[in-house]
Amino acid sequence: MVMKAALMRRLVPDLAGELVEIAELAKPEPVGPHDVVVRIAGAGVCRTELHILQGEIPVEVPHVLGHENAGLVEAVGSEVTAVREGEAVLCYPFISDGMSDPERDGLDQWAPDRVTPGIDAPGGFATHLLSHERAMVKLPEGIDPTDLAPLTDAGLAAYRACAKLDLGPGDTVVVFGAGGLGHLGIQILKAISPARVLAVDVKAEALALAMECGADAGLRPEELELDLGGHAPSAVLDFVGSDRTAAAGIGLLGFGGHYVAVGVGGEVRVPIFDLVGSEKKIEGVYVGSYRDLVEVTDLALSGKVVPRITRYPLEQTNQALSDLASGRITGRAVLAP
Amino acid sequence: MVMKAALMRRLVPDLAGELVEIAELAKPEPVGPHDVVVRIAGAGVCRTELHILQGEIPVEVPHVLGHENAGLVEAVGSEVTAVREGEAVLCYPFISDGMSDPERDGLDQWAPDRVTPGIDAPGGFATHLLSHERAMVKLPEGIDPTDLAPLTDAGLAAYRACAKLDLGPGDTVVVFGAGGLGHLGIQILKAISPARVLAVDVKAEALALAMECGADAGLRPEELELDLGGHAPSAVLDFVGSDRTAAAGIGLLGFGGHYVAVGVGGEVRVPIFDLVGSEKKIEGVYVGSYRDLVEVTDLALSGKVVPRITRYPLEQTNQALSDLASGRITGRAVLAP
Amino acid sequence: MVMKAALMRRLVPDLAGELVEIAELAKPEPVGPHDVVVRIAGAGVCRTELHILQGEIPVEVPHVLGHENAGLVEAVGSEVTAVREGEAVLCYPFISDGMSDPERDGLDQWAPDRVTPGIDAPGGFATHLLSHERAMVKLPEGIDPTDLAPLTDAGLAAYRACAKLDLGPGDTVVVFGAGGLGHLGIQILKAISPARVLAVDVKAEALALAMECGADAGLRPEELELDLGGHAPSAVLDFVGSDRTAAAGIGLLGFGGHYVAVGVGGEVRVPIFDLVGSEKKIEGVYVGSYRDLVEVTDLALSGKVVPRITRYPLEQTNQALSDLASGRITGRAVLAP
Amino acid sequence: MVMKAALMRRLVPDLAGELVEIAELAKPEPVGPHDVVVRIAGAGVCRTELHILQGEIPVEVPHVLGHENAGLVEAVGSEVTAVREGEAVLCYPFISDGMSDPERDGLDQWAPDRVTPGIDAPGGFATHLLSHERAMVKLPEGIDPTDLAPLTDAGLAAYRACAKLDLGPGDTVVVFGAGGLGHLGIQILKAISPARVLAVDVKAEALALAMECGADAGLRPEELELDLGGHAPSAVLDFVGSDRTAAAGIGLLGFGGHYVAVGVGGEVRVPIFDLVGSEKKIEGVYVGSYRDLVEVTDLALSGKVVPRITRYPLEQTNQALSDLASGRITGRAVLAP
Repeated sequence: MVMKAALMRRLVPDLAGELVEIAELAKPEPVGPHDVVVRIAGAGVCRTELHILQGEIPVEVPHVLGHENAGLVEAVGSEVTAVREGEAVLCYPFISDGMSDPERDGLDQWAPDRVTPGIDAPGGFATHLLSHERAMVKLPEGIDPTDLAPLTDAGLAAYRACAKLDLGPGDTVVVFGAGGLGHLGIQILKAISPARVLAVDVKAEALALAMECGADAGLRPEELELDLGGHAPSAVLDFVGSDRTAAAGIGLLGFGGHYVAVGVGGEVRVPIFDLVGSEKKIEGVYVGSYRDLVEVTDLALSGKVVPRITRYPLEQTNQALSDLASGRITGRAVLAP
Repeated sequence: MVMKAALMRRLVPDLAGELVEIAELAKPEPVGPHDVVVRIAGAGVCRTELHILQGEIPVEVPHVLGHENAGLVEAVGSEVTAVREGEAVLCYPFISDGMSDPERDGLDQWAPDRVTPGIDAPGGFATHLLSHERAMVKLPEGIDPTDLAPLTDAGLAAYRACAKLDLGPGDTVVVFGAGGLGHLGIQILKAISPARVLAVDVKAEALALAMECGADAGLRPEELELDLGGHAPSAVLDFVGSDRTAAAGIGLLGFGGHYVAVGVGGEVRVPIFDLVGSEKKIEGVYVGSYRDLVEVTDLALSGKVVPRITRYPLEQTNQALSDLASGRITGRAVLAP
Repeated sequence: MVMKAALMRRLVPDLAGELVEIAELAKPEPVGPHDVVVRIAGAGVCRTELHILQGEIPVEVPHVLGHENAGLVEAVGSEVTAVREGEAVLCYPFISDGMSDPERDGLDQWAPDRVTPGIDAPGGFATHLLSHERAMVKLPEGIDPTDLAPLTDAGLAAYRACAKLDLGPGDTVVVFGAGGLGHLGIQILKAISPARVLAVDVKAEALALAMECGADAGLRPEELELDLGGHAPSAVLDFVGSDRTAAAGIGLLGFGGHYVAVGVGGEVRVPIFDLVGSEKKIEGVYVGSYRDLVEVTDLALSGKVVPRITRYPLEQTNQALSDLASGRITGRAVLAP
Repeated sequence: MVMKAALMRRLVPDLAGELVEIAELAKPEPVGPHDVVVRIAGAGVCRTELHILQGEIPVEVPHVLGHENAGLVEAVGSEVTAVREGEAVLCYPFISDGMSDPERDGLDQWAPDRVTPGIDAPGGFATHLLSHERAMVKLPEGIDPTDLAPLTDAGLAAYRACAKLDLGPGDTVVVFGAGGLGHLGIQILKAISPARVLAVDVKAEALALAMECGADAGLRPEELELDLGGHAPSAVLDFVGSDRTAAAGIGLLGFGGHYVAVGVGGEVRVPIFDLVGSEKKIEGVYVGSYRDLVEVTDLALSGKVVPRITRYPLEQTNQALSDLASGRITGRAVLAP
């Protein structure tokens, strides 16, 4: 049995030309007793894909990208009890056996032997994906998994970051980046806290989306200082992750302020004098736990968080990737084979 | 009425020659209704003094240094009820009126209008100090305040840093610097947690003191990696605070690891990729709250924390400062007029 | 100078007849340097008043009731800097000097020597109230303090109770009582958490108000079990406080469930077997801290929490009290002299 | 293949006469791929056994008691990777597959489908026990598992209870019951906190053991009030669990005080007025998580917690049970076949 997949054959450091090729591969079957094969309904397209194509995150080629997956259960291993064929599911992005110390604490994203389909195993830019019973988050009947695919990485990391913050009435949080993660982060913050949310982005479309998502203000970077009017925000969520956003974000904080990085790039640099003198707190968030995914999914199912997606057929994976690379995506691109 | 004080008359960027001069000044009297005049029994000598003398922390000269003070209440303002003449007290290092938002939350060290004797008011390198009712921590009868003077800044900051850590059985914490703060931090960690404590210092005397203080190992920097044997510590307490200790400390951490800076100098630099990929947490601690001082004092009164001090008469303030500058102090120097 | 007040002259155990008498008393003046005299714009009428009139909470008569006060600053003591004449304020219900251990931790409601106007000092059922600088929460210009008077006790306790809960996506919280406190609690829960809120009350008007306040369902007690459908709520907020609500609330909980009592009456009885076997948590909330009041006020100023009040002129205090006693108030009665 | 076991053939409500009978049963074999058969080195004898024998906790007879087990791995299922034959292990008392919501959060003791050997499956009062890979906590070489068997229930529950408390310098905690759980709780408290620990028991031997375990005082119930001298303890750990200890414990607490029940019996009764008026917190602890067991084991391996045990050969199980029933055990009885 074969399936269709968008195959990455080689690195493309300049992201020019054809990045992946639509090919036929053997369709995965459940091998282990807890394996689950998912027919992909949606696979989110993430900046991580570009990092992989450029060689910044090493993979073995040929490779099938796609770590943000949702679909319908097509086949299950002999011992699977959590899901049945035909059920709609989101795929938690890590596969592991649940035995390591961090997993016994609920932190599967820290499991030493975790496998990440789309990075170190074939991913979801295909019609089918080999996943695992422990990665299944079941959706209720009548929910289209395509729309929710971005929850499994973008939404998951955004949720974990938002949940790290201790936000009460009167707090202001600055969100850098209102893109694939940021537009979800804004909605999450408004759902779980009473804080004022200031979204900062360089693109007008992103700021418009931020306002639709409930931001209290959508600001270009140069407008932020004026809007704050000398009041330090309690927290900065950095979905961009760069020398500039880190320096700006940490610089904005006052006593006890909290900077959380989700986006990856550049470097945090801060004088220890500033760190100590204002008791600032700096931390990074790596994707999220299974429980985090259950929680952000609940926010989506109750209508509090709605991913804004642009659908592409699997055959247009190259288009989706190059639209992302050139900044033409608002919200999240999702391949819907 | 006059008192004796060690007077700083000018900046001494190279810390050479006479740093302060023993002089006679007007003895302070309680002016405001909540003022308290303390006859100094002990005034700790801190690296901050050297930073002030070198001009790194600005003060108006002539100036009386000394922000780590303990003694006996000599006179009180008209409305003081918390202490009486003759009682032994530790002096919380900040003076403020308790009305600001952070103070209403117990965070007096964040009060916008706080005054710090020894920095922006005359300090305790003198026979007498003007303090305030809200800064008084009363000691039981029979306790010599001289021995406990280092609690009011070194012990306070060390305690706050230790209390920030979430340490359980099986955790290892690395302590950089076993000097004035570090030797207290080691004792505090052993008193409040079951963690394994690895003290790291470049000086043999400091490592010997660390072992006396209960460290599970006293290591030179180059020995640390071997001792850890590939196991990441859960936390690093940096009482040095420098480019090198920050980089080394943050580098040692694994998933969820926590780096806390107390010492001030240099810069934290960390790739966001590392911060995010391992969910590291970096934070600074600024002195401590009044409650923190009460708690570390309790540790001392119950014998769990014992400051190791070297006493100098007030007349030998210059000697104490130059011994500190040249690294000849083990534990904490205390002026005992 | 005189003021008007509703004077309680004696206990009225059956709450029948005239409960208070409109009288003229000496208008308070600032005596201590931190005193503040507030011209009352609104004084909430609370079930505590009925407990006092019935003798369940002892007071010295004659007495002026009223612990839920808001108004305009009319005069200030010599050292007051926090507010100025003419400013609109809410009055934190406790007066204390800020020196006790709990106050140094931000817990003024635990201060051993606190005074509560309306209980152990004259309260706000009058045109003027003697309060204190530490009790002032300033309102922005243009805000009518009358509307917000219920925040200072009903809103404060409701907020503290809600903030004790650890509610995430997917959690359900049951609120017993949608009256003076409960209607605020429902709004607070919706503002600070994504939880599903089920309001339970015996009165149709209260359930209608609960739905207006954002409850996900307004249920009569006998409907609750069906609505829950076998799913244990994560938490129960009991604004009634009685044998029955405590037993029912604690009985509903599953593993790790949290019952918080705010209303006072009756007894908690639970088999230790149940407490241990399901790791249940039971706790009480006593009014709130100054910071809690600042935070719930912020929710009101941002429009997320709106007290529903019925205004009575001071002359109709008896009417307001008897309307409350006979269950004819929806939301909160407020005396607006 | 056969094994020896102490077989419970029927209920013995009065605990008189022969409670169990030494018999030969089929030796368990690994059936499922994650099964582990453990050769028992130690099986703790717990008051739960008496509750089962008396019919208070229902089991199907004939039954093999024993939920507190340690030993050597004798055989493993086909997919077991966590342990190998011959390794010394402690047995976490619950068996489950790790898939339920609470397990994904690290709370295996809340798993809806958990099996507890010794209650709803054959236990460890035998030479062999059928357990599961997820229940294995590996011990280092050279450690005798017999000595540590009590960690798997008594130590586990005591640890979880102690870890729930928020104890700092200056806090006092009262421990009711210095028996099988209590003597471990005292050691744990001293290891993980700086609190003052007051042990309360009616038996002189238990108080002597409490002092050996590091208690700051060992008191008979009638001595407690005097020792406290009017200072409320911050917390009460109730290892007895009865109407009297609950009432006494909760009554001792002041503002924010915390009562934690571990022992099971009787009822908590507290006026809501007291709960609310002092913001008391009441909670129960049910055994513990896998991580809790790892942590308390770490305390034992580092020498901070040492179970005091009395060994009985399997043949003397009846003696051990009747010694426990009649209060003749100090510390914990352990069957060591």
